[in-house]
Amino acid sequence: MVDEETRSSDMTMRVFVAGVGQTVFGRRPDSTLKTLSTEAVLQAVDDAGTDIDRIEAAYFANAIGGSITGQEMIAGQVALRSAGLAEVPVFNVENACASASSALHLAAAGVASGTYDVVLAVGAEKMSHPDKRRTFAAIGGAADVDEVFGPDGPSASDRSYFMDLYASNALAYMAATECTVEDLAAVVVKNQAHGARNPRAQYGSATTIEAVLAARPVVEPFTVPMCSPVSDGAAALVLVSETVARQLDREVVEILASVVVSGSRTSETGTNGSSRAAARAYARAGVGPQDLDMVEVHDATASAELLAYEDLGLCERGGAPALVRSGATALGGRVVVNPSGGLLAKGHPIGATGIAQVVEATDQILGRAGDRQVPGARTAMTHNAGGWVGHDNGAVAVTIVGGRR
Amino acid sequence: MVDEETRSSDMTMRVFVAGVGQTVFGRRPDSTLKTLSTEAVLQAVDDAGTDIDRIEAAYFANAIGGSITGQEMIAGQVALRSAGLAEVPVFNVENACASASSALHLAAAGVASGTYDVVLAVGAEKMSHPDKRRTFAAIGGAADVDEVFGPDGPSASDRSYFMDLYASNALAYMAATECTVEDLAAVVVKNQAHGARNPRAQYGSATTIEAVLAARPVVEPFTVPMCSPVSDGAAALVLVSETVARQLDREVVEILASVVVSGSRTSETGTNGSSRAAARAYARAGVGPQDLDMVEVHDATASAELLAYEDLGLCERGGAPALVRSGATALGGRVVVNPSGGLLAKGHPIGATGIAQVVEATDQILGRAGDRQVPGARTAMTHNAGGWVGHDNGAVAVTIVGGRR
Repeated sequence: MVDEETRSSDMTMRVFVAGVGQTVFGRRPDSTLKTLSTEAVLQAVDDAGTDIDRIEAAYFANAIGGSITGQEMIAGQVALRSAGLAEVPVFNVENACASASSALHLAAAGVASGTYDVVLAVGAEKMSHPDKRRTFAAIGGAADVDEVFGPDGPSASDRSYFMDLYASNALAYMAATECTVEDLAAVVVKNQAHGARNPRAQYGSATTIEAVLAARPVVEPFTVPMCSPVSDGAAALVLVSETVARQLDREVVEILASVVVSGSRTSETGTNGSSRAAARAYARAGVGPQDLDMVEVHDATASAELLAYEDLGLCERGGAPALVRSGATALGGRVVVNPSGGLLAKGHPIGATGIAQVVEATDQILGRAGDRQVPGARTAMTHNAGGWVGHDNGAVAVTIVGGRR
Repeated sequence: MVDEETRSSDMTMRVFVAGVGQTVFGRRPDSTLKTLSTEAVLQAVDDAGTDIDRIEAAYFANAIGGSITGQEMIAGQVALRSAGLAEVPVFNVENACASASSALHLAAAGVASGTYDVVLAVGAEKMSHPDKRRTFAAIGGAADVDEVFGPDGPSASDRSYFMDLYASNALAYMAATECTVEDLAAVVVKNQAHGARNPRAQYGSATTIEAVLAARPVVEPFTVPMCSPVSDGAAALVLVSETVARQLDREVVEILASVVVSGSRTSETGTNGSSRAAARAYARAGVGPQDLDMVEVHDATASAELLAYEDLGLCERGGAPALVRSGATALGGRVVVNPSGGLLAKGHPIGATGIAQVVEATDQILGRAGDRQVPGARTAMTHNAGGWVGHDNGAVAVTIVGGRR
C-alpha cells in the first residue's frame, strides 16, 4: 500500500522499494558474482511478491570485478542471466564504494522518468581472492591512478593508500577536536554489538574499548577492527512506480530523496560532498536530521562514522565524540547509526554496500529487523561514499527513505 | 528552439540534444582518457552555447579503461575533472561496445525524471597500447569470461574470439541468403567513401571491391578492411530539458526514443535484440523505417551492417545484399547508412561509439555535416551493440532523434 502521507522528492513521479534481498556478507571462497547476485535478486523478487519476468530493467553495481574475476565488461548481463533475467536492459554502473547507491539513483530515475514500472537495483562484489595482494591492488584503482601510482597503475606495494588517506583525515580530526582513540574504539564496540544481532553480518561480538585498542595496528590511529574488512556479498532492491505500488498487496517504502554528488567524503578536506549531499537530500525529502529514526553511514573506518555524524547534521561540528559516548547512536538511542553493524561489522563488499544500507533501512521501516529493530522506525537515511581523487572528487550518495508505521 | 511538431517518446518529459562534441578518432599514442574526454566535452559545452558550470550531472561511458590504463574505478571523475567539472555527480557506465548509448539512455532518464535540466553524456576510450596483445585481451572481457576463458580470464591467445563469432554469423547469413563476399566488400567501399568526407574519421579512401577482397585475411570471410579498427577517441552530448531548450538561442534535436535491451545483436542467433529494440523505438517515436533519412549502424564488421539493415527494418529479410548493391544506403541514396563512415572507417573507440553516432545524427539534422550532408535530413536512427554471452545477452541500443528542417 502506498502511504499518502509521505512526501515525494522533486522527481516527477514517486518511486517505491517493493522488495529487498541480501546475502550473508563475508569471505565466501566458493561464491562468484553469479551466485551472489542470484541469491540477492531472487530474495528481492520474492519479497516483492512478484516474478523475475516482471522486471523491466536492471541496474547492476560492481566496482572491482574486472580486477578480481577478469569480467571487465557486461558483468551484470553475465551475473543476472543466472538469476533468470533475459532480454531486458542491464546497465553496469560503477562509482567505487558508492557504486550501489549510484545504481539505485539511476534505477529510481528510470522509474521516475516513466520509462519503467518495475526495475532491479543490484550491487555485488567478489573481493576475496586467493592472492590477497590482488584485492589490495584492485582497491587502488579507485584513485587517479596516473597521479598516485604512475602509468602502470596500482600494485601490491600500494595497499595502504586508502587507509593512509583515512588515517590522515582521522589524525587531523583528532587534532582539531576532543576526539580520542577511545572514541574511535567506541564506534567499533557499538557496531560490533549491532552486527552480533544481524544474521547477515560478517562479524559481530561483545567487544570492549580495551580490546579494540589492543588489536593489531594498521596505520596510526587505526587498529584492525577500526577498518572495514574484505567481504564478498550482494544486495538487491525491487523498485516500482506508484501505479505498481498500489497494485501490490504489501507495505512499501518510498524513496524520498536520492542525491549523488562529487567531492570529498569528509569535512577535513576538499568540498565536503557529504554535507552538500545531505543538505540537498533533506531539502528534497522535506525532512531534517531530527526526523531520522536511523542512519546507515559509510564507516569504512571508525573515524569516518564520527565525521559522518557531523556532515549529516546529526550533531554540531566537533560534537561527534560526545554523541557516540552518550549512546545516542546505539540501539535504544535517539538516532541509531548503523543498526546493521555498518561496514565495520556487517562487512563491505564495495559494489553492494549502498544497496545493503537501503535493505537495512527498508527492513527497519517495515518492522522486520528482528533483534536489532529500531522501535517505530519511520524515516531513515543512508550515506555511501567512494573513490578519492587527490583529496577530492570521490562520489558521495545520500538516500532518504520513509514509510508509514 | 524546440520544435513543436516533433513527437515525444513515452518518457514523462521531453529531452533534447543541445550540443555535441567529438575528437578525431584514430590511434593517438599521446592521448589519455583525460585529454580525449576534455576535448569532446568542451566542444559539446561550447556548441550548446553554455558553460561547464551549468552541467548538473555527467554520465561517463568507458569499457576497457581498467584493462588498458589501470583506471578500474571512477574513470569519469578523473577524466572530467580535467574538463573543469566539479562537485556534480558523475555516473560511470559500462555496457561493452554499447556503453555510450547506455550512458545516453541514463542521461536522458535523468532529465526526463525531472532530476536534472542540463546533463552531459560522454563516451571515451583509449584502446591503443604499446603492447597490442593487451588491447585484444581487454576486448575478450566483453564475454562471460568464466565460460569462454576459464578462471584466469582472457589472455593474448584469445584475441580472435569476437571476430570468430562475427565470422560464424556472417557465414551462416551468407549460406542462408544470396550474400557474397563482394557484398561485404561493397559495405566497406561505401563506408570508406563516406569516411573520406569526415574530417574526424580514422580512415577514408576511394577503395574498390577488388582491393578489399585482396587485403590480408583475418578469419573467413573477413579481410582486414571488413573489421573495425582499434581506435582512441571520445564523444560528448549536452542534453537538456524542454525548459532549458526553450531558453537556448539555437536549434535543438529531440531524443524521440532511447531503447536498450539485452539479446543477440543479429538475426542469426539468439533472440535478436536489434529487431526488438528497433520495433520498440519506432513505436515510442511514432515513426517507421520509411521516415528515416539516415541511420548509423554498428558495423563492427561489414556483415554486421547488412544484418542491421534487416533487423532495423530498412529492407525485408534477406534483402540487405540487394539494398547495398542498389546504392540506396550510400550518400545520395534513399536511406543513407553510416554517412560518418561507420565503425569501419570512422573508427570504433568502443566506449565512445554510441554517442559519436548521435553526434553524427545531430550534425546531419542541423545541416552542418559538410561534404557528407544528407539533404533535408530530419529523422535519424542509431544502432549500437556490445558484449556477447554465449550467443546471446549482449546489450543492444537503438536511439531515434529528430528535428525540424
